[in-house]
Amino acid sequence: MTAQQHMLVADIGGTNTRVALAMGDGLDRTTIRRFSNAAHDGLGPILSAYLDEAGMPDCDGACVAVAGPVYDGVARMTNLDWTIDCDGVGKATGAARVAVLNDLQAQGHALGYLAADSLRPVLDGPEPRGDAARLVIGVGTGFNAAPVHEAPGGRIVTASECGHMTLPVRSEADLRLMRFVETAHGFASVEDILSGRGLERLHAFHAESAGFGQRADASAIMAAIAAGEDQVAVATARDFVRLLGSVAGDLALTHLPFGGIYLIGGVARAFTPYYESYGFSQAFRDKGRFSSFMGSFSVAIIEDDYAALEGCVRFLSHSQ
Amino acid sequence: MTAQQHMLVADIGGTNTRVALAMGDGLDRTTIRRFSNAAHDGLGPILSAYLDEAGMPDCDGACVAVAGPVYDGVARMTNLDWTIDCDGVGKATGAARVAVLNDLQAQGHALGYLAADSLRPVLDGPEPRGDAARLVIGVGTGFNAAPVHEAPGGRIVTASECGHMTLPVRSEADLRLMRFVETAHGFASVEDILSGRGLERLHAFHAESAGFGQRADASAIMAAIAAGEDQVAVATARDFVRLLGSVAGDLALTHLPFGGIYLIGGVARAFTPYYESYGFSQAFRDKGRFSSFMGSFSVAIIEDDYAALEGCVRFLSHSQ
Repeated sequence: MTAQQHMLVADIGGTNTRVALAMGDGLDRTTIRRFSNAAHDGLGPILSAYLDEAGMPDCDGACVAVAGPVYDGVARMTNLDWTIDCDGVGKATGAARVAVLNDLQAQGHALGYLAADSLRPVLDGPEPRGDAARLVIGVGTGFNAAPVHEAPGGRIVTASECGHMTLPVRSEADLRLMRFVETAHGFASVEDILSGRGLERLHAFHAESAGFGQRADASAIMAAIAAGEDQVAVATARDFVRLLGSVAGDLALTHLPFGGIYLIGGVARAFTPYYESYGFSQAFRDKGRFSSFMGSFSVAIIEDDYAALEGCVRFLSHSQ
Repeated sequence: MTAQQHMLVADIGGTNTRVALAMGDGLDRTTIRRFSNAAHDGLGPILSAYLDEAGMPDCDGACVAVAGPVYDGVARMTNLDWTIDCDGVGKATGAARVAVLNDLQAQGHALGYLAADSLRPVLDGPEPRGDAARLVIGVGTGFNAAPVHEAPGGRIVTASECGHMTLPVRSEADLRLMRFVETAHGFASVEDILSGRGLERLHAFHAESAGFGQRADASAIMAAIAAGEDQVAVATARDFVRLLGSVAGDLALTHLPFGGIYLIGGVARAFTPYYESYGFSQAFRDKGRFSSFMGSFSVAIIEDDYAALEGCVRFLSHSQ
């Protein structure tokens, strides 16, 4: 890569796409632009508009993070019919080296390259070794996780669909919640509760249990949780934090992320004020004779909105 | 490595240790010897006895698989107070290249190098791509899993403690089972049911539910399941197979092993005749809107008793 060459990176979320340039191995945050997905017919027109505005820089590499599963280099999104693949990104940017990543995988590639003040601790753990595994857990439109391993040939961040695994049940109340979800969806997965729509579903369950018929959207529920006076909202917050702690604990036992667990996504971030008061750590550590072992894992929230873009840059830099 | 040099490999189980030699990259199965752990004071004396009998071959590399967690190259076993680490193995063998692996990780390194007739299909899936992830699930003295990823620098098989995650609960009967386990152990983990002792616990639960007080050991339970006339044994088998299918499905969603799932361990193998009749595939695929996606994964049982030794050889060969 010569000094004039750039890398183009993009982060395609459910509503907006962010695009930026990088030189060397660092994201140039002054170049970040945001585009509305609804106003464009696909990723190609967004990248063309961006490059046009940026004066048509010569792009050596391009990497796109997508909020949806990526199989064989092709990304699918639940709410857009865009096709996002390496060919299309290559054509739109002229880049020779092209990658399409899941957004959680991109976040995984950013770990270790984010400013310390963009990580907000939820649970303290021992100082991690540099080569220890890490785990990104995303709670937003959906639920998913991406384990990060430092392998001999470089970092690998593997894909998962763990949001679709079985919702944990520990009590009669949990079983009623599972039944409530199953009635509508046939099966109660982790994501059916631990996501934006899942939060609304959990609130509807508690409202119905309390004899109220009202439904609320996620932002109204978060406002009611903040006010702290509505018992349905408080019960919703307590269950959400407890179930997230329980699932994060199970995923910690599964992946052994001695380098830390990193929460991302709008819903995970919205719960920042409530993890301590509603018992995240108790639920995370509630694993019987493995309870003290659970102290091996730290948990933090990534508060950098551009971490996925940073991860795209690092992925391209390291795969040269 | 010169033509005269050998690799020494060993597989330390709960009761016996198997030791063998390899030349080039192949395990020499004629050299396999079995030693009783109880008759020896540690791994060192076993390796010394083996090498003495083998005429003191010059060992270039040595790799030991241990049925227990390995952290920082040191293995711990639940029922032996042996210390097993690279230093000790190096001293006992004189080998310069030494590795200590968890036995599931060793099995993961054997995948792709086992005879086709040592794999017995449980669930068919699409033909796997060569670079797809795979997953080893062990059900024996304990429960654990090891995901296998083909990374740019070679295969990596990561560690896990997923046997200690939450036992899935889908019904009132499952919740009663969880309570039954919790009463004795404070928390109901996957391993508390899906293991040899777990099988006994599950049988005790069904015996108590049926109003009988009798306890049975795992071999008596398997005999009663084979006879098929004892309703407590049949209920035990049905639950065991269903819960294993459910947990294997959750682990498939977590690790996406499009290259297949491989069951190992004495208990997983003992259930070979019962997976189909007691609904393993139904439980594995019972994931709501992800049910058809679950058809992406094949499941097979590894019937090669020396797969861990083979994996030790492959690990040493590939890490040269």
